[in-house]
Amino acid sequence: MPERSPEELRDALAALRGEVDLLNRELLDVFIRRLGRVRRIRDVKTALGLPLYDPEREAQELRGLLLANPDPRSAQLVERVFQEIFRASLEGMREGEPGVGTRLPREPATVDVGGVAIGGGAPPVVIAGPCAVEGPEALAASARGLAARGIRILRGGGFKPRTSPYSFQGLGLDGVRILHGVARELGMAAVSEITAAEQLPVFEELVDLVQVGSRNMYNYELLKALGRGRLPVLLKRHFGARIEEWLLAAEYLVSAGNPRVILCERGIRTFEPETRNTLDLSAVAVVKERCGLPVVVDVSHAAGRRDILPRLARAALAAGADGLMVEVHHWPAGALSDGGQQLDLPGFDALLAGLRPYLETPREED
Amino acid sequence: MPERSPEELRDALAALRGEVDLLNRELLDVFIRRLGRVRRIRDVKTALGLPLYDPEREAQELRGLLLANPDPRSAQLVERVFQEIFRASLEGMREGEPGVGTRLPREPATVDVGGVAIGGGAPPVVIAGPCAVEGPEALAASARGLAARGIRILRGGGFKPRTSPYSFQGLGLDGVRILHGVARELGMAAVSEITAAEQLPVFEELVDLVQVGSRNMYNYELLKALGRGRLPVLLKRHFGARIEEWLLAAEYLVSAGNPRVILCERGIRTFEPETRNTLDLSAVAVVKERCGLPVVVDVSHAAGRRDILPRLARAALAAGADGLMVEVHHWPAGALSDGGQQLDLPGFDALLAGLRPYLETPREED
Amino acid sequence: MPERSPEELRDALAALRGEVDLLNRELLDVFIRRLGRVRRIRDVKTALGLPLYDPEREAQELRGLLLANPDPRSAQLVERVFQEIFRASLEGMREGEPGVGTRLPREPATVDVGGVAIGGGAPPVVIAGPCAVEGPEALAASARGLAARGIRILRGGGFKPRTSPYSFQGLGLDGVRILHGVARELGMAAVSEITAAEQLPVFEELVDLVQVGSRNMYNYELLKALGRGRLPVLLKRHFGARIEEWLLAAEYLVSAGNPRVILCERGIRTFEPETRNTLDLSAVAVVKERCGLPVVVDVSHAAGRRDILPRLARAALAAGADGLMVEVHHWPAGALSDGGQQLDLPGFDALLAGLRPYLETPREED
Amino acid sequence: MPERSPEELRDALAALRGEVDLLNRELLDVFIRRLGRVRRIRDVKTALGLPLYDPEREAQELRGLLLANPDPRSAQLVERVFQEIFRASLEGMREGEPGVGTRLPREPATVDVGGVAIGGGAPPVVIAGPCAVEGPEALAASARGLAARGIRILRGGGFKPRTSPYSFQGLGLDGVRILHGVARELGMAAVSEITAAEQLPVFEELVDLVQVGSRNMYNYELLKALGRGRLPVLLKRHFGARIEEWLLAAEYLVSAGNPRVILCERGIRTFEPETRNTLDLSAVAVVKERCGLPVVVDVSHAAGRRDILPRLARAALAAGADGLMVEVHHWPAGALSDGGQQLDLPGFDALLAGLRPYLETPREED
Repeated sequence: MPERSPEELRDALAALRGEVDLLNRELLDVFIRRLGRVRRIRDVKTALGLPLYDPEREAQELRGLLLANPDPRSAQLVERVFQEIFRASLEGMREGEPGVGTRLPREPATVDVGGVAIGGGAPPVVIAGPCAVEGPEALAASARGLAARGIRILRGGGFKPRTSPYSFQGLGLDGVRILHGVARELGMAAVSEITAAEQLPVFEELVDLVQVGSRNMYNYELLKALGRGRLPVLLKRHFGARIEEWLLAAEYLVSAGNPRVILCERGIRTFEPETRNTLDLSAVAVVKERCGLPVVVDVSHAAGRRDILPRLARAALAAGADGLMVEVHHWPAGALSDGGQQLDLPGFDALLAGLRPYLETPREED
Repeated sequence: MPERSPEELRDALAALRGEVDLLNRELLDVFIRRLGRVRRIRDVKTALGLPLYDPEREAQELRGLLLANPDPRSAQLVERVFQEIFRASLEGMREGEPGVGTRLPREPATVDVGGVAIGGGAPPVVIAGPCAVEGPEALAASARGLAARGIRILRGGGFKPRTSPYSFQGLGLDGVRILHGVARELGMAAVSEITAAEQLPVFEELVDLVQVGSRNMYNYELLKALGRGRLPVLLKRHFGARIEEWLLAAEYLVSAGNPRVILCERGIRTFEPETRNTLDLSAVAVVKERCGLPVVVDVSHAAGRRDILPRLARAALAAGADGLMVEVHHWPAGALSDGGQQLDLPGFDALLAGLRPYLETPREED
Repeated sequence: MPERSPEELRDALAALRGEVDLLNRELLDVFIRRLGRVRRIRDVKTALGLPLYDPEREAQELRGLLLANPDPRSAQLVERVFQEIFRASLEGMREGEPGVGTRLPREPATVDVGGVAIGGGAPPVVIAGPCAVEGPEALAASARGLAARGIRILRGGGFKPRTSPYSFQGLGLDGVRILHGVARELGMAAVSEITAAEQLPVFEELVDLVQVGSRNMYNYELLKALGRGRLPVLLKRHFGARIEEWLLAAEYLVSAGNPRVILCERGIRTFEPETRNTLDLSAVAVVKERCGLPVVVDVSHAAGRRDILPRLARAALAAGADGLMVEVHHWPAGALSDGGQQLDLPGFDALLAGLRPYLETPREED
Repeated sequence: MPERSPEELRDALAALRGEVDLLNRELLDVFIRRLGRVRRIRDVKTALGLPLYDPEREAQELRGLLLANPDPRSAQLVERVFQEIFRASLEGMREGEPGVGTRLPREPATVDVGGVAIGGGAPPVVIAGPCAVEGPEALAASARGLAARGIRILRGGGFKPRTSPYSFQGLGLDGVRILHGVARELGMAAVSEITAAEQLPVFEELVDLVQVGSRNMYNYELLKALGRGRLPVLLKRHFGARIEEWLLAAEYLVSAGNPRVILCERGIRTFEPETRNTLDLSAVAVVKERCGLPVVVDVSHAAGRRDILPRLARAALAAGADGLMVEVHHWPAGALSDGGQQLDLPGFDALLAGLRPYLETPREED
């Protein structure tokens, strides 16, 4: 660069900026034209029943561009910019048009669980019951108390995925059978956690809603099997999962043929030790912006302690959740698992009392 | 160990367990007696004005125990168990007795900010204004719109701690002066962020509430200076801070003599990229269990996007927050910082409309 | 409390502290006696083949204590202190005695993978190959290059658990068959990822080492099936898993009968966006302190980018890893998945050159 | 859309894809031309001494584009794509050219600390000493042991930023004076932590290297003051800071006039409880790719425990760190702070023995 005076340099800068402004307008113009084509591709794909997102096509476009690029130094920059363009195009496809690009419903959807409506503007539901089914008497003691309080969906685990192989692993199929019996007797719907695809036929006999626990959210083989089944699915978010991954796990279910999906936020793992997990109510809000699936919040696993449950339950419903899941045990101190976070029946009464204004009104979608 | 039959082994196991049960009772008995002494120590210390937590004394007790321990293999175990005993004792001191062991208030406290009451059961407040003060006309345009909507506390940054030294750093003291002028003219209280202790005298002239930003929550020298000052302090939680650390930062202020502290939750840093930070409403609930300081939630910095603000704002108030902080700019697209998360005035109207049922009633403490 | 002078108060404080000191000694004495019983229980349990950790027994002890506690205000404190005592006792059981309390090996263990020794002091191995098997020619092109560089274990995925159901899902069983054919022809051992227990019989025909991917670490039903199988298992850490949980996942395999476990660290999910995951080499160090299982580090998935692989690979071996896993593709730009993080063969040469001093010497355990 | 047959639809799809391919080439062409202009802007700015990153100019470009955009539905997409283009352009400016766009050195830089060279290919240094200065005799006892082992830089804190206001806060200026005296007597260089800008003049008298602790990394007012000072600065990464933010904190120092910066990685906060923090050696690798500043690793704060220090120290040096920082105390059990993580002198000997091969050779930059 020849020696130039500050004035010359400043003039050069102004001129270069003018050129950049013009090139910006050219980029904008081509991008908007491209977006138009992409939206027409969307219509064609929708008519053909093809998925909008096609990673192989993207990879091929990118390879073409990298080969055509005259400036090899900038290969990485080109790759980054076009990946952003691809991503923006994909979003541009989806914008404003219901049901396109993803198979998740855009409009608020209702899932029927044994006669109880969840989501789609129905009043919020409270799913409650002990962590694990410990025996017929124990479960009945808790369940009768819940039924008397108007609870219509009973939870209870038979297959308990425990961190240690030496911990109480649940009663297995016997537990699910006990749950079925107690729920039927009390006229309640039943929900329980599945841990392997081979359990599905029996679950279809015994429960009204099958739960995928946090630990199995990434178990795609299980999701595919449930997607081919006929039970509604409560899909918990993994404690290490991004919202996007959680929605894509739901997409595994829906794209395999099962649209009856209820999402369940239950806290993510962070550095904060005061709570067992960090309840992420922004996730409820983001999901509500992105799709119409019902969302339920498991406040018990999020908090891992009883004292803050009333506040969290109210906040969850205020954020727009379609329901709550709460661990309630007739005698928490004697529970075989999760004793410290289960409510007893008087504690549950207190929780419900604070929720009254939220539970009586239908959800207002905004 | 001599060869023993399974029956003999099982008998031995039962006998050993019986012995352990007795030793458990002994431990319990001594621990409860120790707790009694500790509670009397608390009373004496309170009368003497001494802090309850005395790490040197603990270290000395531990050294004595390690020297006395006849089984050196178990030194680490002894250390761990006694550290838990110390921690439990400290909590035992605090339990049920207001104002002991910590200098944070136990009962709901009200902080007056230029005539507006925050906390202690007062109806929730909304603090609003642009991210940065950009000039007198710009600020007045935003502020007039806010005043017309009933907002009584105006925010606006003069000193902006920016991640890059090459980003817009705010107008500094001039910005705070502009804020003062606009707020006074409209009869609003003013809040602005301080970044160094030496700015304090001027802040005491110009603002009604001084904000410690997230980045300075660990700046203990600044906290000590504010603790000696006479302005109420809005103490934001650092995005990497545990709740305990945040409360201890408040303790720096209160123990230095300034009880007028308002805590502000604004989201923590997690792996989730959908939101700028992860709003931690459990933190609001935990803080409300632990002390009586007012808590405000900055939904704008937590979300980093506009679309989910109404849901988060409702959830924050339902969780028991005493107020909200919202970034509002008369023309967000033209803002010099944080454009993507600031609401415009129509967006703010929509937010307020959804908050109506929460804002009109005093806080019910539970 | 009657009014007392400061002198009286200070005297009272000193007296109370003396009493606390004596009670501390009593607690210490009982705790050490309890530890003695616990160690005898350990010997009996070991002779009986019972697991050391018995959560039901602990729950029962705790219930007894809570019922016996004369001071109900302190129930939570008692619970915390005894949980710490239980935890310390469990560690006290394990201390210094190999093979007790956990079924993981205490001494460095070697796992044989198709004739290649991993762990137990053997020189570090490098496992390499493409992310996914894309076809026979493509795989052979990569594998021949690796074999020529002395690599003896070939990786390649048939079943690819992808975040999106619309992404390339791998060639499935065909992919594993291709891997088997190519590896056999080149005299290499083969490793591939399993995603459902029903695939196991075919895997036992086709691969020398079966991989549990990060997403399936919490899939305990799969782990139990592999624990009953006869293939060595490479167990990747989930990106959201604590070290303790990862070791307990290994415990699922070992306690079910399969001791041939290789742990694989591959990065955890944090707030840091520069790398795809945050490689946690402290985890390698902690695991090496806790058990004798071999540990391998997957630097490719940790970094998600090529430029820092040489530094991370050296650091992993310096931390004591028994091997590395690296994604290598003969033409990364054309790869169907993970293109951005796979090395090409010249890049792999550069990596190996920098590792020379680490690869040639046997591991020195410390 | 009129009804079309699958064949027609597929033809339409192929045609649209062809058009998208052409538009991609147009975008590529304009982007590469824009990159050319941007690189000329860089040269002009460098000649003028202006910073390359100019957020106001970017904001202005963006506003122009948003106003010019004919498709308001896509405003957000346009914004995202152009922000990526701006970011890529900025990197394009920096690529391959030393010293441009950032003021951090591109080539390995050496910082002299009281006669000891750190970085730039010099053999790695070990900085050691107690957590806090506890008194002249205590410090001398530790320091003599270190000097006898060849350690040339002594650490010791006078101002200790403690989480609780009731914890031992250090001896303050007296502590720094004691450090100065002991270091001078033993011919060592001294490093100590600063917590407020007003302390700087005395630090300039007493220490050879001033440390910014993790908690003050975001204290930009302190950084600006140190940037105007004449002491080399050891800049610790905040435990909640992204690498980018850490480098920008360094940029605060360098852009204010002080190029003598040593970065110090000390672990980040994650969900993993086994270690006090999670040591992020990828950060060392990433920083080494991005700039030439020396990097030191504080293994003691990262680990928070002694047993894994030797492995972490070796890994840090293998990753390319220019030095280590280790807490060593002549009697850790008696230490007033951080007792559990400080090494005693025999433990330090063991650490050094394992580091021998790394310490004796100059750093090889790759």
